Amino acid sequence: MGNRWKAVSAEHEGEATVDLETKIQKPKTRIPPAPSPQPLVPSPRAPAPLLVVGTVAFDSIRTPHGEAENILGGAASYFAVAASWFAPVRIVAVVGEDFGEAELGVFQERAIDTAGLVRAAGKTFHWSGEYLGDMNEARTLETQLNVFEQFSPRLPGSYLDSDFVFLANIDPVLQLHVLRQIPKARLAGLDSMNYWIKGKPEELKKALAEVDLLVINETEARMLSGVSNLKKAAELIRGMGPRTLVIKRGEHGAMLFSQGGIFSAPAFPLDQVHDPTGAGDSFAGGFMGHLAKAGELSDAQFRRAVIYGSVMASYAVEEFGLARLLRLTPEEIEIRYREFKKLMHFDA
Amino acid sequence: MGNRWKAVSAEHEGEATVDLETKIQKPKTRIPPAPSPQPLVPSPRAPAPLLVVGTVAFDSIRTPHGEAENILGGAASYFAVAASWFAPVRIVAVVGEDFGEAELGVFQERAIDTAGLVRAAGKTFHWSGEYLGDMNEARTLETQLNVFEQFSPRLPGSYLDSDFVFLANIDPVLQLHVLRQIPKARLAGLDSMNYWIKGKPEELKKALAEVDLLVINETEARMLSGVSNLKKAAELIRGMGPRTLVIKRGEHGAMLFSQGGIFSAPAFPLDQVHDPTGAGDSFAGGFMGHLAKAGELSDAQFRRAVIYGSVMASYAVEEFGLARLLRLTPEEIEIRYREFKKLMHFDA
Repeated sequence: MGNRWKAVSAEHEGEATVDLETKIQKPKTRIPPAPSPQPLVPSPRAPAPLLVVGTVAFDSIRTPHGEAENILGGAASYFAVAASWFAPVRIVAVVGEDFGEAELGVFQERAIDTAGLVRAAGKTFHWSGEYLGDMNEARTLETQLNVFEQFSPRLPGSYLDSDFVFLANIDPVLQLHVLRQIPKARLAGLDSMNYWIKGKPEELKKALAEVDLLVINETEARMLSGVSNLKKAAELIRGMGPRTLVIKRGEHGAMLFSQGGIFSAPAFPLDQVHDPTGAGDSFAGGFMGHLAKAGELSDAQFRRAVIYGSVMASYAVEEFGLARLLRLTPEEIEIRYREFKKLMHFDA
Repeated sequence: MGNRWKAVSAEHEGEATVDLETKIQKPKTRIPPAPSPQPLVPSPRAPAPLLVVGTVAFDSIRTPHGEAENILGGAASYFAVAASWFAPVRIVAVVGEDFGEAELGVFQERAIDTAGLVRAAGKTFHWSGEYLGDMNEARTLETQLNVFEQFSPRLPGSYLDSDFVFLANIDPVLQLHVLRQIPKARLAGLDSMNYWIKGKPEELKKALAEVDLLVINETEARMLSGVSNLKKAAELIRGMGPRTLVIKRGEHGAMLFSQGGIFSAPAFPLDQVHDPTGAGDSFAGGFMGHLAKAGELSDAQFRRAVIYGSVMASYAVEEFGLARLLRLTPEEIEIRYREFKKLMHFDA
């Protein structure tokens, strides 16, 4: 298989962007599964399998600290790599012919199950964007859906026993389509964005009604609820279905709204943010990963999950793309977790 | 005395605004001191006296939730009222002939020592502003310095043993002038703003070199240091003099940078913010008030002080002006302190 992936990858080098409107009609082929996944952070009980569906992409990114062309990205990639430090991860996504051995090797290195990674004729989803000034917001320069345009995720049989499911930011119709294939999941989480909140509000509400957890950012929470006060927004959103809500606030941290009340965590203070891409997806990966590992859906574990999510987001932004997340160690994760404890500690 | 204040107050009713350029040349009279201050939150040791110098003002405020005309405000007022729940407070400020018995009564009610409150001929400092949308920033409609224009604070003899001193946001030349009259203060804190950072950078740096603590907001920290990363900004600012730095982040909370490392606290999630005016000064009042009460300048106490500051800021914004701070109870302060503990708690 090695040569095939290499050849495709080489073919892609130096190619110009393709027309967003091009429809890819060629048949899809399923990528052979990776070796049996191994949880890499030891745990007293076996971590539950965690499924993620979302985009796998090539990103071209410019920040004040540098730039990178066509690096592996996409919400499902960041989520999967971050979560792989906690639990066995199964990925559902579509890639194109330009998705080579090197990219597949990234998932295999992290023992991520790729049985649900479908290869379609055409090119992989491509996003290019830049961050200016304090890098709080990405400016999208171009989005090429490519093979993603015809994506209709069908789960391999080996995925159907997934206890934990995360529906990363894609069309809510697809999210619901995946969710209904695993109705017995113990915890189903969902991410979304402005584009779907505005464009498919009814479909999104249907999906929200069937999930346990929503992870979105501050602006999206305000837009989805129609109110600017976050506490009120959280009440309204929890009334739409998800009993647990995480509001991501970028450099200002994250808030958890659940039956255990409100929990508020800061972002980890860093000397430099190199590339904010994927921070939110890495957060979600650490969050769900910890829960799958803990196997317990208590308020205490949800709070810990917020910190593990924040740990993974803080590492993700230290370097471009997935680089930092890939060369983490379990010790580094625990060290930063304890640093969060110190950062937030005061005596009662 | 009652009638004199009433008369002046009545005379002021319905008056139009005065020319900002009018110089007030009439002699100043010192307002008689209030009854001996009493710490209102009991403490095992006697809280140390806490001096604040800054503006006492009349504010006219419009927010999406209502408006108020000519209500008592100013940084020193918010600071003093907030701090008065923790320690005996001494105020240094100038007011005009329109500052009536009702306003003086506010300070007296909180047992704030007004020996340093000077009354000058002319009108009290007046600020009018409005908050739009999510109320994160005030838009100043008008500032009338009035009697404040010729303010040169001289401390009464009874203030010279103040252990804790806070130089609220005024001209750094005046801040330094006050500070040098109490060189033996155990903890001197300072607030400033964009106007002085841009307008009197050298004078501000002189003042910074002589204080122990700086309390400023996020934008000001970036402007003062010239860097956007807050961790780096904090290092640079601490290098200018203040070994302890608090960066206020409005609805995103506050960060403490000190020899004990970094401490990050969220803002208290409220259902509604009625009027953000004075939140930062109330924070500083709670912060310094707690330290004066605790009498100990350890990292643990600085962290507690951040939470007490956040408690006072969160109450301050619940109603217009000083109203909510004035009818607090020590129990309410402790209840919210414990709520902060719950808001930030997770298991290690």
